[in-house]
Order: sequence, then C-alpha cells, then structure tokens
Amino acid sequence: MNAIDIIARKRDGFTLTAGEIDFFIQGYTSGAIPDYQAAAWCMAVFLRGMNSEEVTELTLSIARSGQMLDLSDVAPLVADKHSTGGVGDKVTLALGPVVAACGQPVGKMSGRGLGFSGGTIDKLESIPGWSPRLSISDFKRQLANIGLVVAGQTSDLAPADGKLYALRDVTATVPSLPLIASSVMSKKLASGANVILLDVKVGEGAFMRTLPDAEALARIMVTIGAQAGRRVVARVSDMSQPLGHAVGNALEVKEAIATLKGQGPSDFTRLIVEDAGLLLHLCGCIPAAVDSDAIAQRAIADGSALEKFRQFVQAQGGNPAVVDDPEGVLPHAPVVHTLTSPQGGWLAAVNARTFGEVTVQLGGGRMKKEDAIDPSVGVVLRAKIGDRVESGQPLCDIHARSEADARAAAERLLAAYLWSAAPVEPPALIKQTIYPEALNV
Amino acid sequence: MNAIDIIARKRDGFTLTAGEIDFFIQGYTSGAIPDYQAAAWCMAVFLRGMNSEEVTELTLSIARSGQMLDLSDVAPLVADKHSTGGVGDKVTLALGPVVAACGQPVGKMSGRGLGFSGGTIDKLESIPGWSPRLSISDFKRQLANIGLVVAGQTSDLAPADGKLYALRDVTATVPSLPLIASSVMSKKLASGANVILLDVKVGEGAFMRTLPDAEALARIMVTIGAQAGRRVVARVSDMSQPLGHAVGNALEVKEAIATLKGQGPSDFTRLIVEDAGLLLHLCGCIPAAVDSDAIAQRAIADGSALEKFRQFVQAQGGNPAVVDDPEGVLPHAPVVHTLTSPQGGWLAAVNARTFGEVTVQLGGGRMKKEDAIDPSVGVVLRAKIGDRVESGQPLCDIHARSEADARAAAERLLAAYLWSAAPVEPPALIKQTIYPEALNV
Repeated sequence: MNAIDIIARKRDGFTLTAGEIDFFIQGYTSGAIPDYQAAAWCMAVFLRGMNSEEVTELTLSIARSGQMLDLSDVAPLVADKHSTGGVGDKVTLALGPVVAACGQPVGKMSGRGLGFSGGTIDKLESIPGWSPRLSISDFKRQLANIGLVVAGQTSDLAPADGKLYALRDVTATVPSLPLIASSVMSKKLASGANVILLDVKVGEGAFMRTLPDAEALARIMVTIGAQAGRRVVARVSDMSQPLGHAVGNALEVKEAIATLKGQGPSDFTRLIVEDAGLLLHLCGCIPAAVDSDAIAQRAIADGSALEKFRQFVQAQGGNPAVVDDPEGVLPHAPVVHTLTSPQGGWLAAVNARTFGEVTVQLGGGRMKKEDAIDPSVGVVLRAKIGDRVESGQPLCDIHARSEADARAAAERLLAAYLWSAAPVEPPALIKQTIYPEALNV
Repeated sequence: MNAIDIIARKRDGFTLTAGEIDFFIQGYTSGAIPDYQAAAWCMAVFLRGMNSEEVTELTLSIARSGQMLDLSDVAPLVADKHSTGGVGDKVTLALGPVVAACGQPVGKMSGRGLGFSGGTIDKLESIPGWSPRLSISDFKRQLANIGLVVAGQTSDLAPADGKLYALRDVTATVPSLPLIASSVMSKKLASGANVILLDVKVGEGAFMRTLPDAEALARIMVTIGAQAGRRVVARVSDMSQPLGHAVGNALEVKEAIATLKGQGPSDFTRLIVEDAGLLLHLCGCIPAAVDSDAIAQRAIADGSALEKFRQFVQAQGGNPAVVDDPEGVLPHAPVVHTLTSPQGGWLAAVNARTFGEVTVQLGGGRMKKEDAIDPSVGVVLRAKIGDRVESGQPLCDIHARSEADARAAAERLLAAYLWSAAPVEPPALIKQTIYPEALNV
C-alpha cells in the first residue's frame, strides 16, 4: 500500500477501503505522508466524493489519530451539542445548563471562532476568570460533580483533523461534504459523548448556503454517528438572520443568562426548550410519552438551569456574580450607537453574514487564528425579519470601541437590511430534523 | 489574485485566464506558492481538464519560467524531433544525421530515461567520450558548424517543468493530457526549435495505452505549437512491440549506425526515411512537389548521413571510430543468451513494456533518477509480430551481466510473447499524422 496509489484510486473514482483510508490518515498525522500528497488527495475527495462507508471510516480514522476519551466511568450517557457555526449562536450557553439541570450530564469540547462565525469558548471567556483549559481528569471530575463542562479542544484530540483543516484552508478544499462531516464528527467521536445533537446552520450567515447542501451534510453526519455506534440527531436551522438578538461575545453571554431567567428572545427561548427536550428524549432520561419540552421549560421557570450555569461558571474559575449582575460583571464597549431605520416597512432581510463580519470588524472576532479579540463589542438587534418598522425607529444597537468604529459599522449594517411594503412571514427557525434510520424517537 | 482562488476556480470547472495561469506557474517556480497548493491545483486540472487556450497559456508560462533560447542567429529554421517515449526508440540517433545531411540543421535538447522507457542521452553516452554537457554557446556553435547537436536539458530551461513533474510524480497527477502536453511542449518552445516533429507512441510500451488518448495528446500538442507560432506536426506510432530490433543503450546505438549504413531493420529504416522526408518538407527545404523521402533515402545510400553522425559524435567528444567499428568501440555484456521459441506459430504479441522492464532489470535503465545504468545490457529481437517461428527457433538474444540475470530475463520475456495458429498481420507502424489546421503540407 502506498500514498500515490491511494490518491490515484480516489482520483479515478474508486471506493477506498478502510485500510487505505487509515493508512493515509495515520501516515499524514505521523508526517510520513507529506502535505502535497494530502493536498492532492483532498482535491480528489472534493471532486470525486465519498460514499457513507468511506466517510465513516475517514471519521473513525481521524478520531483514532489521537486520544479517544472514554467517559463511561463518569456517566452511562454523556450528551453533546454541536453547531456548524453561525452568527449570534449562543445555544450551547443556554442549552447546556437546561439539559444538565434536568439530570443529564453534558460534556463538550469546543472551538474558537474564525471569520464571521463566533465560537463558544470566546463567548464564555468574556466572563472574568472563566477558563477553558482543563485536563482530562478535571474535565471528568467536573462532569461527575456538576454535570456540565465546556473545555477547549486539546491538541491530543483528533490531531489529524487540525492538520487536515489547516491544509484544506489553503488548498481550496474546505467546502467538501465528506471532509466537513468527518472533521466535525471525528472530534465528537474522540471527545467521548454518546448522544449528540447536531445543529446544521443554513443561509447567508452559515457555511452551508442552501437547504439541499445543509440537509446532505446533516444526513452524512447522522449516518456516521449511527455507524460509529452513537445516537446522533441533526436539526437544520435557519441562519438567514442572526439567532436571537445579540451578536458579540459578552452581549451573547448576557442574552444567554437572560434566557435562563426566562427573559430571552422568544424565538431563541423556543429553540433552547425544543433542543433540550429532544436531547433528553434521545438520552432516554425521559420516556417518549412524556413531554420533555415542558420539563425543559420548567428548569428555566424554577431557576434550576440558571443555578446550574452559576455552578458551571464557578467550577471553571469564572466570577459567579455574572449570573445576578451581568451588566456589572461583563465588559462594556465605551460607545453604543443606535442605528435607526431610514424608512418604514416590513423587514424582509437582516443579513446574518454582515452582522458577523461587522462584529469581526469592530474587534469582536478574528480573521487569523492568532488575532486577539475584544469581548465587549458587537451588535444587538431590535427588529428582525417580519417586524414592522417605522422611519426613525431603532434597527439595532452597535457596541463599539470608538465613534468612528460605530459609524463604519452602521454604514455596513444598513446594507444588511431590506424592507418590504407588504407584510413578511418570518423564516422558520427549524427547517428539518434528521433522525438516524434505525432510531425512532 | 491569490493561489487559493485560482485553485478554487479550476476546482469548480472555470476556464483560467492567462494572467491566473502565469501567476500560479511563476509563483510556484519562485517558491511563493508551496508544493501543497500546486498539488491541489494539479489534481483539479487533472479532473476538470483545460481547454486549448488554457493549455497553450500554461505551456508558454512554463517555457517563460526560465531561459528562452533564440536560435535565429544560427539558422533561419532549426528542426527538432520529440518522442513521448517508448521501448527501442532510437529514432533521434538515425533521424538527426539524415535530416542534417540534407542541409537542415537539427538542434535538440534531450532527457534521460526513467522507468521502462529509454532516453536518447543515455543511449549516446554508451559511445566512449560522448558528452551531453554543452553550454548554450557551444550548442549554437555546433549547430552552426555541423548542423546537428544533441545536448542534455539545462536546468535554466523551463525550470517550472522540472519542479511540476517531480510533484506530479508523487501526487498521482502524471497521466493528465494538459499537464503532459504542456510539459513536453514547454521544453520544445524554450529550446528554440521552430519546426518540431512529435512522435506520440501508443500501445503497451508507451505512456498512452489507447489510440484515442494518443490522438488527443497529439492534437493538443500540435495546437499548442500552432498557437505559439511554431510548425508542429505529430505522428501517432505503434508501441505495441519494441521499435526495430534492439532494446538497450549500446545495442540501440549499434542498430542506429547499421541503419545509417543502409543495413537496419526494414520497418525502422522506413520510419526514419518517412520522418526525415516529413521534416524536410515542413522546414521548406524541399518543395512540396519533390519526393523528400527519396532525398532522405539518398542521404543514407550515399553515406552522407553516416558521415554527419561521425562529425556529431566527434564534436561532442565521442570516439568517431564507433562508426566504422561499433562492435570494437561500444561496451559488451559478458553473457549473451538466446531465448528460443517453445512452440511453433505466428507471433501475435511481443509486449514492448516487458522488454523495457526487463532491460531496466538487467541494469540498462533506472527506476530512480539517481540510479547508475549499464550501457551494455539489453535484448535484441530476432522475430516480431506477424513472423512465423518454429519450435526451438530464436526469439531474441539477451545481453546480460550474468547467467543468472539472463535466466531471470528469459523467464520474464517468455511471457511477453503470444503465438497464433493462423497468420497474423503486423501492426501498422504509423497510426496517424496530425497537421495543424492552418498548415497544408
């Protein structure tokens, strides 16, 4: 077996065997197979595709390239939730506490944001003192004690993925379904969760721009999960406009805390309750006949989810006072500028990608891995698609480091809006839920 | 303009502009574009293809990556002949002297053999003293004085090709028509010849296995030549069995000298005369109405081609006595073993590739660039396709360094033959001649 033959077989459209895929991935991880051969192979995979068995083998092989966490000594089932990345996506921050408060442990390894899409770790780091740096034993201990942990991904976990992703980024091989699916799922498999809820974002503010692409990615990942013996369900959700109201690290933490207090935006709150209910059913904590949404709803109403969030923040070194006084504890931007509507009408578009890009421009995101970020800046929407706005009414608040930054952001954001003279139906948040064939929930 | 966008455009099937192709090739040559990006791009070109304008721009860009020879101060037209590589292909050795003896200068930069296919430089180096190392000024001087020169390709000539070829070799991107055509033609354009006869080999002993593939390659190269302002004609010729009788460096020099003396194999002699006639017409040395084949034939009959070969060998430091006494001057293998036919019948197959591979195995070729070769070894065929052989009659003579080598070779060679109980038609040597659309010869 040699790398050139494996590249040639994929180039010619053949199905690679598990042995060939593993030879290639482990060889690339060890450095025996150089970047240029992996680049040619990635392009061949991009253009020739892979069937579901190949994608599963690829995912397992990438997962095996490093440490495989076994959490069975901590809990019989550990839940995880993964989003493919969007704008204003603070789901993990609210969903984790709700599910954990209902008695189901949630253990998650998460990444940082890159480009227009934010990252959970960046958001949580806006809480003074909070740290994602946990050893594996700390991770397990916190999972056992509190039932909720969010750590930064260690370099021991699926190292082939980090190496492949960096290579794909510079060889025009990122937007390939088998490569995206194996990248996401390899980290999930390696990090030990048994029950995984995938949130595949679709629309202008997501990597997947069209519903068929998003559905295809969701299906591949659900299939990989099933073939690897995990319970995986995927939801395809709207990312044409930002999720909730807040975009920006500290602003999103504030919104997540408000949601745990029952004061969040209604669409975001509904998503959290539904996702939590789905995860609780999937984990088997709640029988199928019982309304798990109501149980999730109660964890918010009775304050147990908020209390779980407080324990979680404290356990990872963060200031727990953030729960009671987010305004006082979280960083503030010195300038808040309100963008008003230049005309009346029904909002027909609130382009999510522009909000993500403007947040990066304000200093709240990064274009390169090594960029530093300012947690305080961002944008808070005051109207969304379908809302009626009058001329002069607020569209959003821009949180910036300077007046000049705010003005530049306002100019760009204005172009993110479209108005209609007739009423507009808001887009459905959940487009589709994809279950594995064998699983009936 | 950046490398990733150019890779993505080719990946998505778009036509690259001249500027994009040149940006990529010059960037790769300078090292600004790394191997892994070039590898992804080569795979995208492999799978998406290129139209004839793109291939021409690619060829010109590769040619421009180094020195472009201008031979117009030496002769108004300089002829070149290039073969895509085959087994027993000693055409240059006999064709060059015939054409030069008819008054048309022939200047050629040539390569070494790799794998089952031999190289002209390796063959000529079996003449004691002969050297391919000429400076550009020596090359021009010899072309002016003798009208015939064969030099090793300098590293200043189309350096992007050397770099790309080495990369393609290890990334499964060699057998791509646009990449093969641009590789061959860039060196031809850079080496300054105005009139080029391409010999595209087809069959088991060639890189192109099928007639449609060989024709397609021939057409692309003729088009590139026309678009680059050169007179290029391509012939597609048979490589199902070795060309002529001899396979192996010194053995092929001996056969070329015999041919120049009018004592060569009839099929090989006919090919040389036809090719020479075609080149002389192309160069316009001989009006279209005149039988140029007869003029080429006369250069053999009157000894002027042989005399030209003697001058050529001497000018490049070789022992000119090789012309009169090839047996005495060229190296000999210590063992000559005759393989006899195990049965009677008409020969239906004499697999050229096996002869090439056996010659490498005997020590007469190289698998890696740095391998040393033994000029004395090889195989001389005594029967070819269509010949009637009886049981016990010689099939070929194996020239080896030891009895063990000869026995191993005999065993492999036996599998290269097939016999038929009915008469077999020998394959036509020339399958097709492809002229540029604008050129009527």
